[in-house]
Amino acid sequence: MNEYVPGLEGVPATKSNISFIDGEKGILSYRGYPIEMLAERSTFEETALLLLDGDLPTRAKLKAFDQDMRANRQVKFRIRELMRQLPPAGHPMDMLQSMMACLGMDHSGAECLTGGDHCNDVNFVHNTSVTIIAHMATMVTMWEHIRNGYDPIEPRTDLTHAENFLWMLTGKEPDRYIARIMDICLILHAEHTINASTFAVLVAGSTLASPYSVIASGIATLSGPLHGGANQAVVHMLEEIGTPEKAAAYIDAQLKAKKKIWGFGHREYNVKDPRAVILEHLMRKFADYKEGKVGPLFEIAQAVEKAATDRLGAKGIYPNVDFYSGVLYREMGIAPDQFPSLFAMSRVAGWLAHWKEQLGQNRIFRPTQVYTGEVDREYVPLERRG
Amino acid sequence: MNEYVPGLEGVPATKSNISFIDGEKGILSYRGYPIEMLAERSTFEETALLLLDGDLPTRAKLKAFDQDMRANRQVKFRIRELMRQLPPAGHPMDMLQSMMACLGMDHSGAECLTGGDHCNDVNFVHNTSVTIIAHMATMVTMWEHIRNGYDPIEPRTDLTHAENFLWMLTGKEPDRYIARIMDICLILHAEHTINASTFAVLVAGSTLASPYSVIASGIATLSGPLHGGANQAVVHMLEEIGTPEKAAAYIDAQLKAKKKIWGFGHREYNVKDPRAVILEHLMRKFADYKEGKVGPLFEIAQAVEKAATDRLGAKGIYPNVDFYSGVLYREMGIAPDQFPSLFAMSRVAGWLAHWKEQLGQNRIFRPTQVYTGEVDREYVPLERRG
Repeated sequence: MNEYVPGLEGVPATKSNISFIDGEKGILSYRGYPIEMLAERSTFEETALLLLDGDLPTRAKLKAFDQDMRANRQVKFRIRELMRQLPPAGHPMDMLQSMMACLGMDHSGAECLTGGDHCNDVNFVHNTSVTIIAHMATMVTMWEHIRNGYDPIEPRTDLTHAENFLWMLTGKEPDRYIARIMDICLILHAEHTINASTFAVLVAGSTLASPYSVIASGIATLSGPLHGGANQAVVHMLEEIGTPEKAAAYIDAQLKAKKKIWGFGHREYNVKDPRAVILEHLMRKFADYKEGKVGPLFEIAQAVEKAATDRLGAKGIYPNVDFYSGVLYREMGIAPDQFPSLFAMSRVAGWLAHWKEQLGQNRIFRPTQVYTGEVDREYVPLERRG
Repeated sequence: MNEYVPGLEGVPATKSNISFIDGEKGILSYRGYPIEMLAERSTFEETALLLLDGDLPTRAKLKAFDQDMRANRQVKFRIRELMRQLPPAGHPMDMLQSMMACLGMDHSGAECLTGGDHCNDVNFVHNTSVTIIAHMATMVTMWEHIRNGYDPIEPRTDLTHAENFLWMLTGKEPDRYIARIMDICLILHAEHTINASTFAVLVAGSTLASPYSVIASGIATLSGPLHGGANQAVVHMLEEIGTPEKAAAYIDAQLKAKKKIWGFGHREYNVKDPRAVILEHLMRKFADYKEGKVGPLFEIAQAVEKAATDRLGAKGIYPNVDFYSGVLYREMGIAPDQFPSLFAMSRVAGWLAHWKEQLGQNRIFRPTQVYTGEVDREYVPLERRG
């Protein structure tokens, strides 16, 4: 008999081979490979395939996957026409959820609705995963242009996933060094065990809903400010602080008012999030590469980390992945309300790996409840009520 | 320490006051009122308000709610223009998920993304709930016309929710008797504890995502053939059987092949689903009202129930809610692929009640996993792989 635990904290909801966290030692690994190793030596394309298939690919497999990804960068014009009709002030995550669900109307995944056996077809799962991962990057950048009143920039096939993303976003020849930093950001955000959005993917996937619907559910759940919206909130917080000197006083005031300090603390880690360690390192490399010509957020962020760690470190509260990612994205010229979209276009690799795993061991999610409500009430006719 | 249970079966995921099931006795109640009582005496409007607020409304409250619902039947033209661009062959549930997410771009719920406190504002929660429930019916019917190449039919304010739905669907003055049967169908489908789609709503809602995103996630999860797609599958099955005489042989063949019999069995009930009992009764009333001028599905359904119950009843497998609802909807002239949409436009009342309840006791869902994968693998450079 299982007891009730709010948020199912500590309650195992699945068996999984995909990723592993040791929150005491600060370890995160994908398929057995520590995140530091992948950040240093892998690419987003390779990491995505590792997550999906379970092993580092052979040269031939990686080449085929990379070619498939490039060939799937183009999004049907119908999506572009729909985006033109969307309200420009709407949040990019709402756009992404809506258009992802819409993709399901045009692609074969929709047939899952009638219970087609191909939901468990290996090729269907693989090909759909490629389409979704490749399309996500295109849709994020399309919307950035369309909401500002411009035509989107066509994807190119001669660039890596990260390079092509920066190309579609800016229309400028991507800087290879900056693109590699983006590539590492994508790797770092690609997977993180059973958090809320990944869990949403398992729940939706367990009904054999179409993969587009399933991934749209992941996007919806990631869009909440308690989840994928946090890196956007970090940048707003740093901008509000304004200068490094004001960091300590701000942290004191927040703690006194019992308010949240965005980008700090994680249910899974009692030490500094290993992804935050890498991101801070990337931030320094970015600043060096730019010969120090970076905005004030870098220094403010470091002052906030120091002030917050001095006060909260003893409680096991340290920077998490959201703390530095927003700063980096901001320096790359990305709008803060697109930060959750970048999270989504990375995490989609992990979501699809979990969707595939769920299909292989499927049991529909139907937990129970502790009923605390009324029983045996008598229906009082309307005319006899107040 | 909680043990791993596939699908979280029997694992309590929330405390809830909303609905209660006794699967041995065949009891389902909403807020303490047995479903039979509500089906006989309540309306969908009243039941929705009961689910949202916890008590049967006073006359004044019900009147205000009803007026608000009528005033919110109109959907912004932007949604209509978007629907015109959607692929006509796409599944209505994909449309509904996509357009629901899209509504969030135009309505104030999207601000939840920045963590606004109004997510917990009682008026915001109530008003958004009214908008979503009222809009769902309009959107379902709009799509029926648009996908067939016609302009949608404008909602009217002089009709009940069920009557107006039939008006918008057919453009004919609704028959009050048939509309009341539809009204009862909406009541019967409005809530059913923590099934997969309601659970998806809790998970998405726990990140404080916008209510439009949250409901879109419920729609996504309901769209799966193992969940809300089943009533569509029942009708296909009955059509395939063709005549009542062939029912027994069909059931025998399915059982022999270990194939699913759609509309039979439910994880929560060991007896006939109390909703199926009411729906069967409604089906007879419908046939009587039509003086027997109904299609063959009624008789085939009853023959299938008899044959299946003879063979499976001893195992606690009886008709569930999906078995008769599709037959009724088909007789009302509704396209089978819209049956899940009807399920969604009913269940949205329960989803919103659970969303509201979750906000009042919120803890982000982050279960854990049993890790069964690799550890400490060494990264082999690409050039040294096969």
